[in-house]
Amino acid sequence: MSYDPDNIFAKILRGEIPSFKLYEDDETYVFMDIMPRADGHCLVIPKTPCRNLLDASPAQLAAVMATTQRMSHAVMRAFGAEGVTIQQFNEDAGGQEVYHLHFHVLPRHAGVALRPPGTMADMDVLKAQAEKIVAAVG
Amino acid sequence: MSYDPDNIFAKILRGEIPSFKLYEDDETYVFMDIMPRADGHCLVIPKTPCRNLLDASPAQLAAVMATTQRMSHAVMRAFGAEGVTIQQFNEDAGGQEVYHLHFHVLPRHAGVALRPPGTMADMDVLKAQAEKIVAAVG
Repeated sequence: MSYDPDNIFAKILRGEIPSFKLYEDDETYVFMDIMPRADGHCLVIPKTPCRNLLDASPAQLAAVMATTQRMSHAVMRAFGAEGVTIQQFNEDAGGQEVYHLHFHVLPRHAGVALRPPGTMADMDVLKAQAEKIVAAVG
Repeated sequence: MSYDPDNIFAKILRGEIPSFKLYEDDETYVFMDIMPRADGHCLVIPKTPCRNLLDASPAQLAAVMATTQRMSHAVMRAFGAEGVTIQQFNEDAGGQEVYHLHFHVLPRHAGVALRPPGTMADMDVLKAQAEKIVAAVG
């Protein structure tokens, strides 16, 4: 299993394609999922190459998890969410679609199911949601 | 949000109720989920108290993620899986049922959906699967 430097998240990290950025530090980058399964659904990725959990270094995992925790608090504040679901997919059979390690952070409200995958968000709505999260991430 | 020392995983850690143990080190413990959504579905927990991702320490997260990675490789070897799905639930709205931090490790095969939650496994089957994972975890 190798790393393809032309995967879409690598292009986002290089600024070759746009994203709604929510947070970044030296090691991680966070942006809106453009096919959100819940309002505020965002993705946490390492800035360094890594296919998925199977080849991640301890340093990459520690950094990505610290940011995943930070974003969990932020999206709960931003959307008044009562919980958060974390998902992380490895290889095609495991549900992975982009081969750069990423953790899904999904704000949850009681009784509200996740939406089915695969529907593109309205970009104006996504931008407004991103602004709420940026204000909450502190 | 507080930690209840009488949650079921705390009781497993204290040996007050049984579990099919797969792996342990100084900081983490791994055992079979008794309502598996895939063959080899296991749970990784820290040995120290922690409600979920929202209150976990950096040390707990780093330890649990290192073991989650180790178990991902082990279950893929044990079941010839082609991928792994990781799930982690926070608070009731986020899908959490036991209030001790845990990561679900789900071995996946192409075209095989996760089973619906909530069905108890046959204990003899679970024991045999646990033995395969113990042999693979190395």
